[in-house]
Amino acid sequence: MLNNEFEKAFSLLKSNSPLVHHITNYVTAHICADMTLAIGASPVMADAIEEVEEMVSMSSSLVINIGTLNERTVKSMIKAGKKANECGTPVILDPVGAGATTFRYETTKKLIEEIDFAIIKGNLSEIKTIAGLSTKSRGVDSIDMDSNSHNIARELAKKLNCVIVITGQEDIVSDGETTLVLKNGTPLLGSITGTGCMSASLIGSFVGVGLSPLTSASLAILTMCISGEIAARRLSNDSGSKSFKTYLIDAVYNMEYDTISKEMNVEYV
Amino acid sequence: MLNNEFEKAFSLLKSNSPLVHHITNYVTAHICADMTLAIGASPVMADAIEEVEEMVSMSSSLVINIGTLNERTVKSMIKAGKKANECGTPVILDPVGAGATTFRYETTKKLIEEIDFAIIKGNLSEIKTIAGLSTKSRGVDSIDMDSNSHNIARELAKKLNCVIVITGQEDIVSDGETTLVLKNGTPLLGSITGTGCMSASLIGSFVGVGLSPLTSASLAILTMCISGEIAARRLSNDSGSKSFKTYLIDAVYNMEYDTISKEMNVEYV
Amino acid sequence: MLNNEFEKAFSLLKSNSPLVHHITNYVTAHICADMTLAIGASPVMADAIEEVEEMVSMSSSLVINIGTLNERTVKSMIKAGKKANECGTPVILDPVGAGATTFRYETTKKLIEEIDFAIIKGNLSEIKTIAGLSTKSRGVDSIDMDSNSHNIARELAKKLNCVIVITGQEDIVSDGETTLVLKNGTPLLGSITGTGCMSASLIGSFVGVGLSPLTSASLAILTMCISGEIAARRLSNDSGSKSFKTYLIDAVYNMEYDTISKEMNVEYV
Repeated sequence: MLNNEFEKAFSLLKSNSPLVHHITNYVTAHICADMTLAIGASPVMADAIEEVEEMVSMSSSLVINIGTLNERTVKSMIKAGKKANECGTPVILDPVGAGATTFRYETTKKLIEEIDFAIIKGNLSEIKTIAGLSTKSRGVDSIDMDSNSHNIARELAKKLNCVIVITGQEDIVSDGETTLVLKNGTPLLGSITGTGCMSASLIGSFVGVGLSPLTSASLAILTMCISGEIAARRLSNDSGSKSFKTYLIDAVYNMEYDTISKEMNVEYV
Repeated sequence: MLNNEFEKAFSLLKSNSPLVHHITNYVTAHICADMTLAIGASPVMADAIEEVEEMVSMSSSLVINIGTLNERTVKSMIKAGKKANECGTPVILDPVGAGATTFRYETTKKLIEEIDFAIIKGNLSEIKTIAGLSTKSRGVDSIDMDSNSHNIARELAKKLNCVIVITGQEDIVSDGETTLVLKNGTPLLGSITGTGCMSASLIGSFVGVGLSPLTSASLAILTMCISGEIAARRLSNDSGSKSFKTYLIDAVYNMEYDTISKEMNVEYV
Repeated sequence: MLNNEFEKAFSLLKSNSPLVHHITNYVTAHICADMTLAIGASPVMADAIEEVEEMVSMSSSLVINIGTLNERTVKSMIKAGKKANECGTPVILDPVGAGATTFRYETTKKLIEEIDFAIIKGNLSEIKTIAGLSTKSRGVDSIDMDSNSHNIARELAKKLNCVIVITGQEDIVSDGETTLVLKNGTPLLGSITGTGCMSASLIGSFVGVGLSPLTSASLAILTMCISGEIAARRLSNDSGSKSFKTYLIDAVYNMEYDTISKEMNVEYV
């Protein structure tokens, strides 16, 4: 079902090179910009309140990531998100560590109240926090396990009327009606900084060429996970996590529809 | 003509290791620091208003980059730039996305009014914005083409009494009298984050050992573009944009005068 | 003497994955997060005053780095440090460029007055600045040489009742009673950005599993320096500083007690 849309995605990216506006953290901003370029889109990072409305007006999508939020940038996120809604520009939320501190929790709540998100992507702990369920996290990492995660994704997607992505050993994508379990990947993706943030950049890139939120999220996660598998196979004995990261972006840079189509391991639930 | 100055540049860098003060964006700060070290200079990133004057007083050059500007850092840029002018320390401007938003436009204008720049380096869209010409950009990237770009560089250099660099498929460097077209490079330089920012760091490094602004800008661009060519040749079939980036900095780290001299493709216009 | 503690450190890290809270600069935040993951710990970067107390309360250690300090983040450092002291959570100070500007000097002084640090790690110039001795620096780099450095470390450790680390060609670690000179390493560690910052992240990781500050600091420095030696041996002719950086983190990712034990070159003075 998704394959038809996947096929055109990569050529659309190369020809349109959509502008993906990020309001994001200073830890992974660089690697997210690299990842956005690798898939064929064009990143811009701008978080000054004076300019976010203008910048998002010319962008094809907006990625909001609260990784190193502060009072100043939260205001810019809200302003940019509202403007994006006005323009019909899809907005992605990456609620990094949503349950870790009160400030992150309150900010996430406020963002969801004020902005209509097309896609919210988080680990299980972040998504359960948003769903109002009790959960366990440590810092910005989830240490929660829940066999019920596709139901959580489906229900939250219905409630918020958006696509929900839960990343983990298996990744869940749901728009409330269709729910997919994506089974590609490698544990090495957990050994580097920014895997989640880069996934959000890929979602922003795909949704920026006009693919549906469900297709965009699924294809972004598949691109990330299959690229991870390819990168893992390139590692030699003395290689480690940083070589893996280099190879991961290399693999995204070289990714084609045929590879996705051949390698993807998806289950509808 | 430039060759004599080029010859001594690399040895001066190794022996003097000039301090290059950056007030720059959080997306490319890390790679700019790596690049500055690779060429043999010493980077310092400091943007607190309380310390920029002291920091620039002990520096050999100042690089101002508005990539992720905000109200706080713009104040620091102006304060540091004025102090640098007082000290006779050369200042480089990288007006990232100058035409993209009103805030960037107004900031660029104010910086140019308040500070005497030795070198302004931008893509065609950024430089045309400064020159008061109509142009097209998307985010921080130029999508303008103009066969007239060396005249634009020459006229703006005369008007602002500084060296103008226009980066693109071919790069233009002009001090208003001498104008060079630099024809080295590879399209891969457009597939990574921070090519422009790193070029400004190289300019700051060369001008920091006392080379003229024209020589510094030309040599920095040549170093970047020829290193890009060397990096591209190292790529294997499964390599991509991130391996290219690693090899690019490796090539700068290993760059010698003889390589520049042999590989450079320069036309005076 | 240290070997017994070293042996258990690596397995403790893999099983406990301690959360290392960083309040740090935007230049090296990404590579510090990568390094923390490479050794087996879990990084979190959070500097908003609204959340640092909560974040540090769930963390195993706190790393404070003043690399790109500003008024806002200095307040967060103090608040987080005091809370960590209340919780009995070890705090590491990386006083980047402590002597370079008045703002850095005053901030360092204030941090040491208000917070009890378990470990302070700096280059010779930074440590001499803290000790009230005259010194020479350029930007954030030391250009001081002092044959008396182990006495400086020992005396300052006694005075501040913490472990002092002086990094340089040889590294000194002292708790005021035991003083070690660590002789591993490679000059290439000076050719990349963030060597010092990454060392502090490793210290935070080891102290986060409950090793003593002296053991943690020694083991972190040894891990860094021996990984540097391994990385240097992987370099081919056309490799340079950026490949070295990749290999450095790879080597940390693969580091085992046996390698440390076999390669370490330590003298007690």
